[in-house]
Amino acid sequence: MTQYKPNGIITLLTDFGCRDPFVGVMKGVILTRFRDAVIVDLTHSIDAQDIAQGSFWLEKSFGWFPQGTVHVAVVDPAVGTARAAVVATAGGHCFVGPDNGLLAPAVDTAGAGEVHEIDVERLGLPRPCDTFHGRDVFAPVGALLAGGHTQPSSVGPPRAGLIASPLPRVQRTPTGVLGSVVAIDHFGNLVTNLDENLLKTGRAVDVCIMGKSLPLRRTFMDAERGEWLALVGSFGTIELAVREGHAASVLGVRPGTPVELIMGRSASSMPPP
Amino acid sequence: MTQYKPNGIITLLTDFGCRDPFVGVMKGVILTRFRDAVIVDLTHSIDAQDIAQGSFWLEKSFGWFPQGTVHVAVVDPAVGTARAAVVATAGGHCFVGPDNGLLAPAVDTAGAGEVHEIDVERLGLPRPCDTFHGRDVFAPVGALLAGGHTQPSSVGPPRAGLIASPLPRVQRTPTGVLGSVVAIDHFGNLVTNLDENLLKTGRAVDVCIMGKSLPLRRTFMDAERGEWLALVGSFGTIELAVREGHAASVLGVRPGTPVELIMGRSASSMPPP
Amino acid sequence: MTQYKPNGIITLLTDFGCRDPFVGVMKGVILTRFRDAVIVDLTHSIDAQDIAQGSFWLEKSFGWFPQGTVHVAVVDPAVGTARAAVVATAGGHCFVGPDNGLLAPAVDTAGAGEVHEIDVERLGLPRPCDTFHGRDVFAPVGALLAGGHTQPSSVGPPRAGLIASPLPRVQRTPTGVLGSVVAIDHFGNLVTNLDENLLKTGRAVDVCIMGKSLPLRRTFMDAERGEWLALVGSFGTIELAVREGHAASVLGVRPGTPVELIMGRSASSMPPP
Repeated sequence: MTQYKPNGIITLLTDFGCRDPFVGVMKGVILTRFRDAVIVDLTHSIDAQDIAQGSFWLEKSFGWFPQGTVHVAVVDPAVGTARAAVVATAGGHCFVGPDNGLLAPAVDTAGAGEVHEIDVERLGLPRPCDTFHGRDVFAPVGALLAGGHTQPSSVGPPRAGLIASPLPRVQRTPTGVLGSVVAIDHFGNLVTNLDENLLKTGRAVDVCIMGKSLPLRRTFMDAERGEWLALVGSFGTIELAVREGHAASVLGVRPGTPVELIMGRSASSMPPP
Repeated sequence: MTQYKPNGIITLLTDFGCRDPFVGVMKGVILTRFRDAVIVDLTHSIDAQDIAQGSFWLEKSFGWFPQGTVHVAVVDPAVGTARAAVVATAGGHCFVGPDNGLLAPAVDTAGAGEVHEIDVERLGLPRPCDTFHGRDVFAPVGALLAGGHTQPSSVGPPRAGLIASPLPRVQRTPTGVLGSVVAIDHFGNLVTNLDENLLKTGRAVDVCIMGKSLPLRRTFMDAERGEWLALVGSFGTIELAVREGHAASVLGVRPGTPVELIMGRSASSMPPP
Repeated sequence: MTQYKPNGIITLLTDFGCRDPFVGVMKGVILTRFRDAVIVDLTHSIDAQDIAQGSFWLEKSFGWFPQGTVHVAVVDPAVGTARAAVVATAGGHCFVGPDNGLLAPAVDTAGAGEVHEIDVERLGLPRPCDTFHGRDVFAPVGALLAGGHTQPSSVGPPRAGLIASPLPRVQRTPTGVLGSVVAIDHFGNLVTNLDENLLKTGRAVDVCIMGKSLPLRRTFMDAERGEWLALVGSFGTIELAVREGHAASVLGVRPGTPVELIMGRSASSMPPP
């Protein structure tokens, strides 16, 4: 098991947007407690309260940072209630956020980990307000961890594990595999939770959404302008797109829409012509 | 009076948005003059030319940064005219921007302060262009101050004080207290200038907007999905919201809309049933 | 010719938007290879695949950063095809991106330069995915250069030059000079490629767009509220605007719309009244 040793980098992933000074104020709190923090915005545009989407992007993103990074993630519809605030370490990374499913996929991917519940009193933090634990709990704890002022195991009592993500699991169907759209990216492409490994069976596939069947291509340039296509996106899952168009607006798709991978016969078992 | 001693941190608050490289270029100017600056975006999404809103968020935000921080704020509809460019120090913080009301609330909150007018010639800065003093005046002065290359008192002649914010003041009414919506946050919640201290009278209150009367709750979870509520926001003022909805679009509210706190009888003076 | 010596600063200009963690992940890749990088976002809101617009803003922005800065620019519709990935040095700056016209105007302005094609194998980089060279090629190469781990001339074989920008060139007409709208800024102002030097002829001018003729003013305050005006923008080109309005929505203008500068007689050659 890789040990966590802080490297001073803190990433932030939230659904706070960039309109208000919420994120700026979190950075002020971090710098107040750890002047030399290197703070990186992963994204603040997770759809409001969409824990599944947040957990998806956190899992896809954290591994591009060096070990020793602290990842502070806040998509927290139950802020101010009894849901736990936690710190998890796994694979040399450290994750800080509410225990509502947001952290689980990343921690699972990172490897066997330890989880502790944050006890703000034990850490000597001021009493948090009821609506903004990003500022009052997660930012200061992230700073204490990244600065090496506190160990992950010292933030509070250990917990057995994390609550699972609400991200729907991919399911086998008689004809293939059923997943769903998780996020709409900046270009309007539909990002799914269908892993590229599902394509490694050697079988031909069609990708179906809302009654539409799409061919699988290698790059956008392999489709005509305005043509629909499916391709393996840069984070290793299948994406649906319109070349030089905005797929989500055309189809009116939202996160949660089902996407099916229809598996044909394997190339090797094809009958002779 | 707390002395200002630079800590190398510079915050930026503007109405420039993030679409164009305006803010990026300001950072280039800062780093050219002070390579080790730590630059934090507070927000660049103040509504265009809304000095009141900018002054509100600056006042709510600066205190979350350590003393010694330089806060550069630019909402500047009169750029290129005779309005003064100023540096104010108060409570160990330093504020840089146009003297149009933007800085006054923060400086008032920070404590007794000193104000100096920026004299670009005295500082040896190139002649500023007529439309972008964020880049040509405020960024370089912020860098000189944060880097300790210039003292606040050396930027130009002293001034008696700052122009007051156009933010409307809260007023007593026969039935309670009248304030207004100052900002719409990322979630569509209506942020008002009604301070939480107004609730400490022990009296029951209703919060009224556009003929609608809202109950006061502690957290969002205390309302039903889709229900209207008022609550104390994370910056200590009353906010109006729809749980898991976008309040501003539902009511068509804009900054400036009146909000009244209707004060009932005090709980202790309630007549016996 | 000014030598390029890295100062540790890296700017990013892309059309990736800020919705997804694309940019955050690029920063993770940079910090993994060069922990002390100072990373500045120029903009990530270049219109999708608008190479001309990206090349315009890069040229207007890079000079506000100190020499020794690495500018990573990614507007890359042909990602995954045979288009070259390049590093160019000029005027003490270093530019990294696809060779599709994006870098050419900045490099031309910076001065005589050298261009090398990036050979990912020679640099020992993992095989890039087909859709996100920002993360897999340009970010790591930018980090290697900014950290001084690789010289620009060592990234791969030299090239004769760069592909020219698709930005339309300004043309002489019988009545004046014809340019176009390049970008819509955050305020809705129309930014053109008509350089302010075109105004230095001493002749009176009108600025025409979509049959509308606009007067040239010095600042926004020189127009009435709601009035149309043309003025020299803060990056030295002519901009069209409505005072306290959103010009682009009013006229329905998009990048590419023609704008003509109608030159009157020179003031000195004016006939006596």
